[in-house]
Amino acid sequence: MQVIEILREASRQVYENVKDLAGTKAAAEDHGIGKGGDISRKIDIVAEKTVLDYLKKIKFDCIVLGEECGRVELSRKPKGFVIMDAIDGSANAVRGIPFFCCSLAFAPKNKLSSITDGVVTDLSNGDMYWATKGKGAYLNKKKITVHKQKPVYKIVGINVSGATPKLVKRIQPIFQNSNHSRHLGANALELALFARGLIDVYIDLREKIRVTDMAAGYIISKEAGGVILDQKLKPLDSDLSYETRLSFIAAANKQILSDTVKQLKL
Amino acid sequence: MQVIEILREASRQVYENVKDLAGTKAAAEDHGIGKGGDISRKIDIVAEKTVLDYLKKIKFDCIVLGEECGRVELSRKPKGFVIMDAIDGSANAVRGIPFFCCSLAFAPKNKLSSITDGVVTDLSNGDMYWATKGKGAYLNKKKITVHKQKPVYKIVGINVSGATPKLVKRIQPIFQNSNHSRHLGANALELALFARGLIDVYIDLREKIRVTDMAAGYIISKEAGGVILDQKLKPLDSDLSYETRLSFIAAANKQILSDTVKQLKL
Repeated sequence: MQVIEILREASRQVYENVKDLAGTKAAAEDHGIGKGGDISRKIDIVAEKTVLDYLKKIKFDCIVLGEECGRVELSRKPKGFVIMDAIDGSANAVRGIPFFCCSLAFAPKNKLSSITDGVVTDLSNGDMYWATKGKGAYLNKKKITVHKQKPVYKIVGINVSGATPKLVKRIQPIFQNSNHSRHLGANALELALFARGLIDVYIDLREKIRVTDMAAGYIISKEAGGVILDQKLKPLDSDLSYETRLSFIAAANKQILSDTVKQLKL
Repeated sequence: MQVIEILREASRQVYENVKDLAGTKAAAEDHGIGKGGDISRKIDIVAEKTVLDYLKKIKFDCIVLGEECGRVELSRKPKGFVIMDAIDGSANAVRGIPFFCCSLAFAPKNKLSSITDGVVTDLSNGDMYWATKGKGAYLNKKKITVHKQKPVYKIVGINVSGATPKLVKRIQPIFQNSNHSRHLGANALELALFARGLIDVYIDLREKIRVTDMAAGYIISKEAGGVILDQKLKPLDSDLSYETRLSFIAAANKQILSDTVKQLKL
């Protein structure tokens, strides 16, 4: 079984197990602070358990790095890391806003840039975005690419939740110059929409994003032809530690990247 | 036939006529500048024509105030105004982001506060939010209310597209103090989610919103128990002219309103 097939099947099982839970009282049940530092909700726990149980069942030799469970060594001879945010967009999922996803990626080494496979499943409808290094990106069975042309309406995704005054001041020109800024509330799924060509640039400069939040979105976006840079405009990379926090800009093409960089005075 | 039934049927027909158009190249076809001042896209035109054709067919004595068509007098003895944004969230609709809606409201007088009926239909799935003055608000057949309790995750909806530097500075505390700010890109549907209890406060202080953008959301939110104030913290009201531009805060309860007002120093 290929790694991408394993991630796809795990992700499909998460969809089956949580699709009726979102927006219910049960989904919000408090399960204490997860390893990532946020409160784990029942929906997070159910989703993570689904992935862990499946990986154990098929005896996949890996180390799981999870938003809630932290580092779980499923093998003494791991082939690499499964980077899991079993529910990305937990607040949306708990409240019932239909924009949240399951994000799973595989990396043979302890490096973001070593990621070979990623799957993001839209848990409100089961749509599956996936990519394997060098083989392109897909939505279900259809190949997807970022939006290369000048868009009819330019859509700017930007995450500003909890942003400092300094950061808000810095990103003010983005708001001023965009008639269509968006903040949908699930980074991995926003990157998937970016990869699909629905969002032209996605900006998160808060230094808050964990690798688990965007590992799958990273490979899907790259395979769809997107550019992902850090705040110093170098290709984004990091270790896979869940203490690591990232900032990044994902741009569909050079023109949009250049416009964004000018506005942010980077 | 009651007014609410007329609006519901018109809205249902819009859903039928545009549901396969969203995200296609055809949807984006340029039809010149609409009366509201934005470019009319084919999807906007198809949706408006659906409503106008239906109102003519059933000979509803009214004046239509539309985002694209402007003022259309369908009768010499009008019972009132049908306030129409046949596609709210046109940018999302054209690009294929599944968050856009049809917004229809009825007002016997040339006043926002006189609105008696409103329907917002989520055009990505057909979900219909509707309300008649004094009779509560509904999602399809289910009664809905704003979220009165302290939320597990507080969701703050905020529209900052095209905001001035001054306004961005003013709303900075909202970003700083919210871990879950959202900007989904269709005011009327965001107000419907607010009325349904999924968003706790919705803020738009840009003085850009037209009455057509939020007339239906206004009555649905009020009937669901929400408070809607202008930037001077008075109950929101205005004439129905499409030159009029509004700012407003919709809050689910007094505590959230008070927190928001403090943060904005209003």
